[in-house]
Amino acid sequence: MTDEQRDHDPIADLIVTYNELNTSFIEELHEEPSALEFMRFVARNTPFVVRGGAANWKATQTWTAEFLSNFLGDEIVNVAVTPFGNADAPTIHPQTGSLVFAKPHEEDQPFSDFLTYVIHQEKTQGLRKSEVRYAQTQNDNLRQEYSSLYSAVPPTIPWARIALSDPHRLGPDEEAQPEAINLWIGNSLSTTALHKDNYENVYVQIRGRKHFVLLPPHCLPCVNERELKSGGYVRQQPVTTEGEGEGKDGEKEEWAWGGKGKLELVMEKEKDEETGEEKEVTVPFAIWDPDKPEENATKYSKLAEPMRVTLEEGDMLYLPAMWYHKVSQSCSQEGICVAVNYWYDMDFTGPLFPFTSFVRAVNQQQQREKKKKEES
Amino acid sequence: MTDEQRDHDPIADLIVTYNELNTSFIEELHEEPSALEFMRFVARNTPFVVRGGAANWKATQTWTAEFLSNFLGDEIVNVAVTPFGNADAPTIHPQTGSLVFAKPHEEDQPFSDFLTYVIHQEKTQGLRKSEVRYAQTQNDNLRQEYSSLYSAVPPTIPWARIALSDPHRLGPDEEAQPEAINLWIGNSLSTTALHKDNYENVYVQIRGRKHFVLLPPHCLPCVNERELKSGGYVRQQPVTTEGEGEGKDGEKEEWAWGGKGKLELVMEKEKDEETGEEKEVTVPFAIWDPDKPEENATKYSKLAEPMRVTLEEGDMLYLPAMWYHKVSQSCSQEGICVAVNYWYDMDFTGPLFPFTSFVRAVNQQQQREKKKKEES
Ligand SMILES: O=C(O)CCC(=O)C(=O)O
Ligand SMILES: O=C(O)CCC(=O)C(=O)O
Repeated sequence: MTDEQRDHDPIADLIVTYNELNTSFIEELHEEPSALEFMRFVARNTPFVVRGGAANWKATQTWTAEFLSNFLGDEIVNVAVTPFGNADAPTIHPQTGSLVFAKPHEEDQPFSDFLTYVIHQEKTQGLRKSEVRYAQTQNDNLRQEYSSLYSAVPPTIPWARIALSDPHRLGPDEEAQPEAINLWIGNSLSTTALHKDNYENVYVQIRGRKHFVLLPPHCLPCVNERELKSGGYVRQQPVTTEGEGEGKDGEKEEWAWGGKGKLELVMEKEKDEETGEEKEVTVPFAIWDPDKPEENATKYSKLAEPMRVTLEEGDMLYLPAMWYHKVSQSCSQEGICVAVNYWYDMDFTGPLFPFTSFVRAVNQQQQREKKKKEES
Repeated sequence: MTDEQRDHDPIADLIVTYNELNTSFIEELHEEPSALEFMRFVARNTPFVVRGGAANWKATQTWTAEFLSNFLGDEIVNVAVTPFGNADAPTIHPQTGSLVFAKPHEEDQPFSDFLTYVIHQEKTQGLRKSEVRYAQTQNDNLRQEYSSLYSAVPPTIPWARIALSDPHRLGPDEEAQPEAINLWIGNSLSTTALHKDNYENVYVQIRGRKHFVLLPPHCLPCVNERELKSGGYVRQQPVTTEGEGEGKDGEKEEWAWGGKGKLELVMEKEKDEETGEEKEVTVPFAIWDPDKPEENATKYSKLAEPMRVTLEEGDMLYLPAMWYHKVSQSCSQEGICVAVNYWYDMDFTGPLFPFTSFVRAVNQQQQREKKKKEES
């Protein structure tokens, strides 16, 4: 990229300037940071990983598949079910062929059944095309559904608590509490599509590995955010009662849940407040996948320098507020992938939030103007 | 400003979004912050004042005019001399009538003479129109020219040193040292025009008061930065040898420096590297003055919500990197205004610097396009 090009394309210049001043290799710590050290990363809105930071947690020490299955037994848990491990992901609609946002079907089931399915699918080549199950409710589930497991993790991350207990935002004697502590249990067939959250996130790997691809907030023009029509998978009436069926391409689905029907993607509708008519629901969502950089790219995608990090068992990741992240997983020998994460409220004061909105606005304005030119 | 307007003007939306999320009242502490508390302000790129934070400094306790004059005596110091207290300020050129950037005439003189002038001018109504002297070399002068005074202030600000000693930027055992410690001595006739520095600044008031007007970095489109032709005041040959002369409007300059000539603003020239011809030197500089908000305004100036703070003797200000600041002063009863400030290197990693450059680039592009439209 020449200086001339950068001069005439502020968005390109922003991305390249950032790349010049920042590395895309994640910083690796080998012990937990102090609150002050952590705050320096918050100030730079920059991730780091603490290798082995949670190695001594009771969860890391004790949560084997066998333990979890015995311990939770047939407690009922909520599971996200999708055909391709694509919960909350841009997905080609099988009927219309257009890219839509797919929400999972949610199903309650006994935990031990869920875990058996996850493991069996992971270990059985022939089940790669069966439906995929992921416990990922993201609603503070470790303090709710899974509260019996909660004592195996610390109730908060001390350095995050101390650093984020900012009297400017909280009361003078108030402490920053995690807004949510989430448990994630699945297998290698689930992937979490590129997205961002308005939370400071401390993500801890317990079993198996997670592979993060990270992009800073200003890379918004690279990720090709679109208004996608939103739909959800809905379980259809079963065709046979034997719980067996043919896979899409004729492969036998040898193993499934007693006679359950197929999942169908049903588009959401809502009433238009003005006209009263039914209309499609849309959600803004990134459609660029940094692992398939040629597809769905914008003219800025190639400038992005994604930061990649794999979390091993006992590793902790600080994922700063508003960073894009795509997450895929590998299983432990037992065939599971388990993680816990802590969401803390981000600080909306200071420049980060307004600046990020500004990048979105400039990008949108540019797109509007391009469209206008093309139309005239 | 309507949502519609904000939607179509990303810069306006940026400024208003920031205003909605941040207060323009400065945070007041009553004791020095811890390193962590300080780091939270660095993270938010937000100023604070510590009332009385330097009340016990030896400088605050002992630097009276009399003490300084006796202590430094006739040590030679470098003084900025200007006709209107306008060192490094946008100034109407008296001959051409155009707005230029005026650098002070620099003069070496015995400290006690300098201080006598400053005080005498402050206390004598009739000398308001005489030339203005300000010791403001900004070149680490407290550890150089004024090093004999240096022991009366701490060599560093502990909470800034600890917080900014970031192993990510410095060596693992290296400490953040002030890049410069500056002494500022003048009277109420000197004003420092709105500008910004790429330093984290801890500014400490010792005698008299300083009045800061502050704007965050993203207010760049409000400050009307222009390429100003740059000139410097040059002392002319004296017309009389008696050291007396007529003021501009006939008022007698009763008191001046033995037979010194007038100051004339001489524009700087440099050789054009390509053509080899002489050309004028320009510097980019803000020409909007938040205290005269109607003059030299841009369409965004009215959206700015300047933060105002007056430092009293013993107060400390954290002035975050890249914040615009205009500084004027009031004198102590003795007729002097004395301050000390510490500049620490800012962190160019993270989003702040690239985002700020982005705002400049978008603003410039918008101006170019407006010009193009007007021309066609
Ligand atoms: O682990 C995952 O699949 C996704 C994690 C995630 O998106 C988050 O922690 O915000
Ligand atoms: O005190 C003044 O006149 C100006 C101070 C200033 O600009 C600074 O500390 O950067």
